[in-house]
Amino acid sequence: MITLYTAATPNGWKASVALEEMGLAYRTEAVNLMEGQQHTPGFKALNPNGRIPVIVDHDNHNHAVFESGAILLYLAEKTGQFLPDDPLKRSEAIQWLMFQIGGVGPMMGQANVFHRYLDERIPVAIDRYHNEVRRLFTVLDTHLADRDYLAGSYSIADMANWCWVRTYAWSGVSIDGLDNLRRWKNSIEARPAARRGVAIPHKIDQEALLRGASRVVTR
Amino acid sequence: MITLYTAATPNGWKASVALEEMGLAYRTEAVNLMEGQQHTPGFKALNPNGRIPVIVDHDNHNHAVFESGAILLYLAEKTGQFLPDDPLKRSEAIQWLMFQIGGVGPMMGQANVFHRYLDERIPVAIDRYHNEVRRLFTVLDTHLADRDYLAGSYSIADMANWCWVRTYAWSGVSIDGLDNLRRWKNSIEARPAARRGVAIPHKIDQEALLRGASRVVTR
Repeated sequence: MITLYTAATPNGWKASVALEEMGLAYRTEAVNLMEGQQHTPGFKALNPNGRIPVIVDHDNHNHAVFESGAILLYLAEKTGQFLPDDPLKRSEAIQWLMFQIGGVGPMMGQANVFHRYLDERIPVAIDRYHNEVRRLFTVLDTHLADRDYLAGSYSIADMANWCWVRTYAWSGVSIDGLDNLRRWKNSIEARPAARRGVAIPHKIDQEALLRGASRVVTR
Repeated sequence: MITLYTAATPNGWKASVALEEMGLAYRTEAVNLMEGQQHTPGFKALNPNGRIPVIVDHDNHNHAVFESGAILLYLAEKTGQFLPDDPLKRSEAIQWLMFQIGGVGPMMGQANVFHRYLDERIPVAIDRYHNEVRRLFTVLDTHLADRDYLAGSYSIADMANWCWVRTYAWSGVSIDGLDNLRRWKNSIEARPAARRGVAIPHKIDQEALLRGASRVVTR
């Protein structure tokens, strides 16, 4: 059994999509970011950075893993799924995973801050992040012109990038004209496990609350 | 033999520090970012994202690896060095590697843009990135209070974080009061291989140019 500490964000969904795709048994603990639950000592004992997602693997010495990219690698290696065995193909998948971790994620995150969260409108910052996100999308689109997935068959690299790319409208970036990217996005959206993953965490379980559960366990 | 395509940036140094620490034979091709060499079709055939560093491993089917985090993992696995064998310790090292790839690197990069490169002064953006970098530094400092390195012995996680943290002054962020971080930084600075790594690429080799070398091979 694995416990997943998460919230409804692209980084959180990476972990729940992987758990669903891999068919692993897990329970979810919804972390209320608005209330700052990620900054509590209990949570920071799991992740000193105070960020979701975190998993705890009760079948492996209660090993805690933070950073969504590290979680994806850990789960892929634990299960032998969604990361090629062939060393060169495996390396390719890790490259496109890192492209998301160091590029797509942080740049869409900054686009969200300046496009959506800040009251003050700062055109130079908004333009910077919109342009960079569109550029990264174009890199993906070009790469996907002659392949179905980023690195051989469907892998954790696709899961990671998809969890962010699917939120393009929230970031204020268009995917018009990026037909390969859209085809790839739609093909992952058609996977039942991926759809289940991005529905995590489920809405607060009021009955569990009424029963006096100390945390909201939604699964 | 490995070819390293790089430039004098923290991401480039991650690759050269790892190559030096691991004692691998390599030659350097300096990519002139100001002239846009990273956008040429030849370079983008190696990395569709048009970014340094890239390595090509001539002893492994001329396999190309882009994204500095992927390069570090590739080289650690190729040589069996600087990544623990123990699965739980290995997972810890990968978590702190990802902390750099998705956090320290992108946030210091944005600090550099708004603090150093843009003519326009945008206090809200400068403050945002300075505060976030200082927060990330504090996470590292706290973690290093009772250990010498980020995950067991010296690993690729330390190399990755050090290559960025050492440039704190350039980003306009202080490490005053973060004594554990400073001690860790200094201990890596004392390693001859790390110092050699951050001196790559060497200054342009005028003699090689005069001999008609097609590119500036500095090693």
